[in-house]
Amino acid sequence: MWGGRFAAKPDTVMQAINASIGVDKRLWREDIEGSKAHAAMLAACGIITRDEADKIHEGLEAIALDIASGRFVFDEALEDIHLNIEARLTDMIGEPGRRLHTARSRNDQVATDFKLWTARACDAAGDALSALQQVLLDRAEEHADWVMPGFTHLQTAMPITLGHHLLAYVEMLDRDAMRLAAAASMAREGCPLGAAALAGTGFPIDRGMTAKLLGFDGPAGNSLDAVSSRDFALQAVSVLAICATHLSRLAEEIVLWTSPQFGFARLSDAWSTGSSIMPQKRNPDAAELIRAKASRIAADFQALASIVNALPLAYAKDLQEDKALTFSAFDSFDLCAAALRGMMQTIRFNRQTMALAAEKGFSTATELADWLVRAAGIAFRDAHHIVGACVKKAEALGHESLSSMALSEFQTIDPRINAEAVAQLSVDKAVEARDSLGGTAPQRVREAVQRWRAALGALDEEEA
Amino acid sequence: MWGGRFAAKPDTVMQAINASIGVDKRLWREDIEGSKAHAAMLAACGIITRDEADKIHEGLEAIALDIASGRFVFDEALEDIHLNIEARLTDMIGEPGRRLHTARSRNDQVATDFKLWTARACDAAGDALSALQQVLLDRAEEHADWVMPGFTHLQTAMPITLGHHLLAYVEMLDRDAMRLAAAASMAREGCPLGAAALAGTGFPIDRGMTAKLLGFDGPAGNSLDAVSSRDFALQAVSVLAICATHLSRLAEEIVLWTSPQFGFARLSDAWSTGSSIMPQKRNPDAAELIRAKASRIAADFQALASIVNALPLAYAKDLQEDKALTFSAFDSFDLCAAALRGMMQTIRFNRQTMALAAEKGFSTATELADWLVRAAGIAFRDAHHIVGACVKKAEALGHESLSSMALSEFQTIDPRINAEAVAQLSVDKAVEARDSLGGTAPQRVREAVQRWRAALGALDEEEA
Amino acid sequence: MWGGRFAAKPDTVMQAINASIGVDKRLWREDIEGSKAHAAMLAACGIITRDEADKIHEGLEAIALDIASGRFVFDEALEDIHLNIEARLTDMIGEPGRRLHTARSRNDQVATDFKLWTARACDAAGDALSALQQVLLDRAEEHADWVMPGFTHLQTAMPITLGHHLLAYVEMLDRDAMRLAAAASMAREGCPLGAAALAGTGFPIDRGMTAKLLGFDGPAGNSLDAVSSRDFALQAVSVLAICATHLSRLAEEIVLWTSPQFGFARLSDAWSTGSSIMPQKRNPDAAELIRAKASRIAADFQALASIVNALPLAYAKDLQEDKALTFSAFDSFDLCAAALRGMMQTIRFNRQTMALAAEKGFSTATELADWLVRAAGIAFRDAHHIVGACVKKAEALGHESLSSMALSEFQTIDPRINAEAVAQLSVDKAVEARDSLGGTAPQRVREAVQRWRAALGALDEEEA
Amino acid sequence: MWGGRFAAKPDTVMQAINASIGVDKRLWREDIEGSKAHAAMLAACGIITRDEADKIHEGLEAIALDIASGRFVFDEALEDIHLNIEARLTDMIGEPGRRLHTARSRNDQVATDFKLWTARACDAAGDALSALQQVLLDRAEEHADWVMPGFTHLQTAMPITLGHHLLAYVEMLDRDAMRLAAAASMAREGCPLGAAALAGTGFPIDRGMTAKLLGFDGPAGNSLDAVSSRDFALQAVSVLAICATHLSRLAEEIVLWTSPQFGFARLSDAWSTGSSIMPQKRNPDAAELIRAKASRIAADFQALASIVNALPLAYAKDLQEDKALTFSAFDSFDLCAAALRGMMQTIRFNRQTMALAAEKGFSTATELADWLVRAAGIAFRDAHHIVGACVKKAEALGHESLSSMALSEFQTIDPRINAEAVAQLSVDKAVEARDSLGGTAPQRVREAVQRWRAALGALDEEEA
Repeated sequence: MWGGRFAAKPDTVMQAINASIGVDKRLWREDIEGSKAHAAMLAACGIITRDEADKIHEGLEAIALDIASGRFVFDEALEDIHLNIEARLTDMIGEPGRRLHTARSRNDQVATDFKLWTARACDAAGDALSALQQVLLDRAEEHADWVMPGFTHLQTAMPITLGHHLLAYVEMLDRDAMRLAAAASMAREGCPLGAAALAGTGFPIDRGMTAKLLGFDGPAGNSLDAVSSRDFALQAVSVLAICATHLSRLAEEIVLWTSPQFGFARLSDAWSTGSSIMPQKRNPDAAELIRAKASRIAADFQALASIVNALPLAYAKDLQEDKALTFSAFDSFDLCAAALRGMMQTIRFNRQTMALAAEKGFSTATELADWLVRAAGIAFRDAHHIVGACVKKAEALGHESLSSMALSEFQTIDPRINAEAVAQLSVDKAVEARDSLGGTAPQRVREAVQRWRAALGALDEEEA
Repeated sequence: MWGGRFAAKPDTVMQAINASIGVDKRLWREDIEGSKAHAAMLAACGIITRDEADKIHEGLEAIALDIASGRFVFDEALEDIHLNIEARLTDMIGEPGRRLHTARSRNDQVATDFKLWTARACDAAGDALSALQQVLLDRAEEHADWVMPGFTHLQTAMPITLGHHLLAYVEMLDRDAMRLAAAASMAREGCPLGAAALAGTGFPIDRGMTAKLLGFDGPAGNSLDAVSSRDFALQAVSVLAICATHLSRLAEEIVLWTSPQFGFARLSDAWSTGSSIMPQKRNPDAAELIRAKASRIAADFQALASIVNALPLAYAKDLQEDKALTFSAFDSFDLCAAALRGMMQTIRFNRQTMALAAEKGFSTATELADWLVRAAGIAFRDAHHIVGACVKKAEALGHESLSSMALSEFQTIDPRINAEAVAQLSVDKAVEARDSLGGTAPQRVREAVQRWRAALGALDEEEA
Repeated sequence: MWGGRFAAKPDTVMQAINASIGVDKRLWREDIEGSKAHAAMLAACGIITRDEADKIHEGLEAIALDIASGRFVFDEALEDIHLNIEARLTDMIGEPGRRLHTARSRNDQVATDFKLWTARACDAAGDALSALQQVLLDRAEEHADWVMPGFTHLQTAMPITLGHHLLAYVEMLDRDAMRLAAAASMAREGCPLGAAALAGTGFPIDRGMTAKLLGFDGPAGNSLDAVSSRDFALQAVSVLAICATHLSRLAEEIVLWTSPQFGFARLSDAWSTGSSIMPQKRNPDAAELIRAKASRIAADFQALASIVNALPLAYAKDLQEDKALTFSAFDSFDLCAAALRGMMQTIRFNRQTMALAAEKGFSTATELADWLVRAAGIAFRDAHHIVGACVKKAEALGHESLSSMALSEFQTIDPRINAEAVAQLSVDKAVEARDSLGGTAPQRVREAVQRWRAALGALDEEEA
Repeated sequence: MWGGRFAAKPDTVMQAINASIGVDKRLWREDIEGSKAHAAMLAACGIITRDEADKIHEGLEAIALDIASGRFVFDEALEDIHLNIEARLTDMIGEPGRRLHTARSRNDQVATDFKLWTARACDAAGDALSALQQVLLDRAEEHADWVMPGFTHLQTAMPITLGHHLLAYVEMLDRDAMRLAAAASMAREGCPLGAAALAGTGFPIDRGMTAKLLGFDGPAGNSLDAVSSRDFALQAVSVLAICATHLSRLAEEIVLWTSPQFGFARLSDAWSTGSSIMPQKRNPDAAELIRAKASRIAADFQALASIVNALPLAYAKDLQEDKALTFSAFDSFDLCAAALRGMMQTIRFNRQTMALAAEKGFSTATELADWLVRAAGIAFRDAHHIVGACVKKAEALGHESLSSMALSEFQTIDPRINAEAVAQLSVDKAVEARDSLGGTAPQRVREAVQRWRAALGALDEEEA
């Protein structure tokens, strides 16, 4: 803020680098709520009159309507959202507007606004994850017994069920949702309002009242910490970055599955794009963008951490950049979660292609090893070597799966391998067999879907 | 792992890039615990005999002793900690060793080991923070009423108390400790053991038993997720990165405070270094290294996130790099927390220098503005302008603080400023005045110390 | 791009995540230049008629005028700058507009546009550095013999001259300028136009002609590389990130020097900001923002690298995010360079305060050690120990500099120290003495300024 | 360094965080070379005697032999490589050893060592790239006319030749090699030796002589810059990070191509790994690790940049962390380049599978569009729509490629499509047709291979 005792005007470059209104106007709702709570408290404590508080309240409500409807004209010379609103308020209501800034400072004001915004953004991000989980549950249930190759190192490892695969993401997103809820709670800890510039205030204010009015768990316990700390934002953005790794993994799988080489799935028209020169293309652009945006969210965290690193207390202007980065991370995240939901809702899977792929690559080799352990009492490491020899032979004979090799060929390797053993080697048998807790068997998948529906439903009711 | 059906030996570069034993041997304790639990469970479920389980148990205990005492020779050709231990076990006890790997895979094994290691590392990091908080509380109590300048933008803003300043870090570290505890809990959610390679197993195992034996809250609910996910490590490292921003902020302040220009504090000999050419130097090397290591921890998170981004399920070798990064982050962190504790325990503050600095820069200007609001009923924004004029005048007259300007000079600016007002302008009065909740007044600092001692004590008891 | 054979419309979220026009419209100038060159070449090769090329040329010129004057209405449904311009062109001139896209694709088109933009942005950034160097040279010359403390570890190490300190940045920026020039050259290597979607084209085009018209050094040698690679952008942003570390170092020094504890300098009013509650503050906001923006530029590089990592050839939509990141890095950089120039032009230094600070902290201890080596033939390591003892004694006697301790006291430590030795210990003597090449002596500073002026002047002439 | 006037010993944590010998001992060769050059120069300038210089030279040679043979015992209490070597030298030769540190400091010494090390590491990395390019050229020539699908968005776009695809990487690596050479040159600009601690020295040294002896282009022009700057390391690591994006892209393609879904290629046994539980697996572990290590190299840059950001001049201990990060980046890089070379040397491609894949997905649709433009004079945008309709029809009829649809079906869409047009639609015709400069036609590939062989050969001769 310029003014007061300064003789010269700021340089225009100075104004350009310094103004934050282009970014922080997004905090207008929280800024107005904060000011309303502050005014109510000042009146309750006798620092301003009830009448002044009422005028402030009405003025702020009018400004809120103006901003919501797009009528409000933001002025870059007024630097930020706080001064824009306060200046307009004073224009509207005069003297009481000039009293509003008593016992506060922009430092505690912006920290309060930003914490509120972040908490709400975390809530909304959690809702988006929940909606995505619901879609994944629906698709998992539909495809509980559709067999596909399970990959490690992108090599066919074992047959699994598509339902099981999709449920893996429901688990990941559940942990993400827990982390988002924790980040929201952390942002609602310790209301900064009343910390003033950095040292607290001498006015007899009631910080518990403003904290309560704004939905915080209580006032911040130390005024320096209140205005200097941004770990709530770092936490929120780190949680988004972690969740984005999950979203981008599924996005990567969509890119793979819809490629002609895989042919496992096809995106709906609404989620495909074409090419300006190759009319036949069905490009998974949104999935690719999710990958890229995940990288950007991680870099947003990196930038935030680097900005706060080694910054002496209390407020420093470096912190102005925190909002652009946090907003960017949430915007990227919201698009990713919504796009992934849209794609997963409408993607169509190709049962036959997936099943055929699951057959290949000797995917049921481990079933044979396990059978040798169970039925023939062979130590696992020995069984492993026997099966290795079987695969080598099958490959030499031109087979692509063990189930297509004749029993007699197996028995040249190890006579203990019998018809019962060979019968285990179909992909359907293989997925059914893996029915231990957490396993890929269709029955397990259906149970897990029910368990998740109950858990997420209970959560919804709790919130309602 | 090579062997089985492969004709050729791995290339030596392949061996060099692929071997992880140099890094993952650090998981030996967890790997042995996991194997002991797995063997006990296999026996309880009748998959191996009780006698085999006993032999495995004894063999593993012997190996643990060997490793702990440095006698164990790790073999790079055996790639990783899992194969090194299993091979040694089979050497020692023969056949039962070859049965241990039944119903598990290295994929679930390493995930289990790594989760256990991470949970414990989070616990230890939390203890380190708690020890640092205790030191800060002691020093805050000692310096509850020592006045220093409170800075914003590294400009003197208002006088504060050193105790208050130190308590700001106690608050930050408390949130860090909460995040570490959450990260530890998350790492103890969902034991991967028994997820096998990716699809679960067909052996009738009891995953609840191994989860319980190893201190997890239960078995992981989805076998693909269990072997593919590393969000527990991302969460832990992100929490370290966030906490490191706090540690580096205090480290930066140590660098500033001990510089001759500030002269606020002096590090003990045990925490200073000299120069090879300038014998008079007392360099705060450890504080500088904390700043640098904070940057490294954030980059460790960045690398981890970038590695996991867009990685298709299930296990891929990219994940091998997760351990080096996580270990590096915890090692950096442990050094930082311990060094900061050591420095803060023994740093000596210079009361007089800090008090003199607090006087300068018109640091009590806001007191005058607040007095004008309180005593003269002037709107804050108007008071602000009046005080701006006073500062301008004082500066022109060569004063460095408002309290040294004569009352008559104030009154040429605004006659409402009286002797009572000017009496508020000493730094001691100023810090006493800011006694609202969270404020810098010595009384508030002492109360906060007591509150924190109680809170941290209660925490210790709870844990004991 | 949708259309052609797709039955359904894109989802609105799909449109939101996919549209890039909000970002890439900034390439309009390069897109139009590229299209003009392409049309001219198509005509020269007989692929379109001269008349068609003329119509295209005129249409594009008209569009350029519209965009430059703000009259052009961008349509998000048309996704990007290429389709917006082509659609408008076809609206204006009909059929010939539909022929323009012959023998090219959006893939080579955007790569060409982006390379051109990046090359020019590097040129402009280099000019900004050159302007900053000129200011630094002026200020260095003015302050060639102003003594200040030279710091290591922010501890006073030795006296230096302010001119010498400022010239250190001229050196850094010179290397930055060299890197920027190399980045610009790299961006002008290998014109992608005519690589078409990825495989080249069967039309008999003249790629050398378009490359030449657009100022490239020649056509790209491989069509897949031409459309898939973004190392030119990575290189440019990495160079900005490296330069930003230099800008932020000087910014940090501005923050320190203008803090009351240092008091070395004072920013002009045009480059200071005040406080809403503390009317006396002169905050170095722009310097702080430079620090923060340097962190953001490094993170922009990080995001870019992470996006391109492990991306299979050829074009993928992930690459769409490259422009937002590159634009952001250049925008941040431009503000930083301009703000630093403005601050350095108008900052006023405080000769007396700096000189006093340079005296303190036994800053000339090394002079004594060097004297003992030179005059008394003592080995450096022994001299170092003797001086250490002197400093210890001086400190014990309450001196802040060696020059204020009596000769007799020195001689109790080592009798070889004589009056001549003690005469070396003033800060002025000390800086004069360090006159080896690259040293801090005022004479050396003045010579360096002249050398730099000649070098930068020669550069300007070369460019002119 | 402790000692001199300090009363107390350093804390053990202090020693642990402060010691760098574990990392910087890797600079021993450069440190000894630097000391030899420094001693020779001191003697030439008459600062030490010729005899002293000879003793120092012999002592350093003996130490070099000891270190090279592993006999040298490094002492952590001596902190770093400089003090370890100097202490040993003084043990061996006495007094002259104590004179070596005249007119230098550890600050200029480490900067000199590190610049030399970095320059050489860049040279070696460039050689590794050149070796990889040679392998790629060989494989490109072998597969100049093998047809494969060219992808965009991992969707089949157009047929290309494998040789053409591999040559894309030769282009990328060429730019990487140029950047590495520039980084090496930059590291050899400005020898820091003689800058002393930060201010230059008063001894009459000849900095040009040491610079020349060590292979620098000359002495650094400013002593503060010489000891404080690390942009040479940032530049080198950024270049590695950029190149690593290219290496990881090819690594990603190896993972895809060797997956059973693609089946385009098979890694040799020497570059495959198996699975502990799935004996049939051939895992591309090295390729996956290249992806992961690319992420780590980028993060190394990030950490370096973050460490240097906002660091005031001159030397600060934060810079100690620069070496660990730079060494780590080069180590990762060297493994990646060598592993990629090994894989590419021995990978076998599957011609038939690739050709079949190239047929599918209507990959020659653009050929038809181009034919309509060329032969029928239709505007490209109109041709594009006609071909879109053809693809739609072919898809509806169950075709996977346009070439398998009957001419009559084409003519129901547009009667201008004739037999000649349909004859263009085979993949072999398609790749042959794209013979413009940089295109995928086999003839173009063979020419490019010859051009590259000449260019790289000329380079080798130049260096020899």
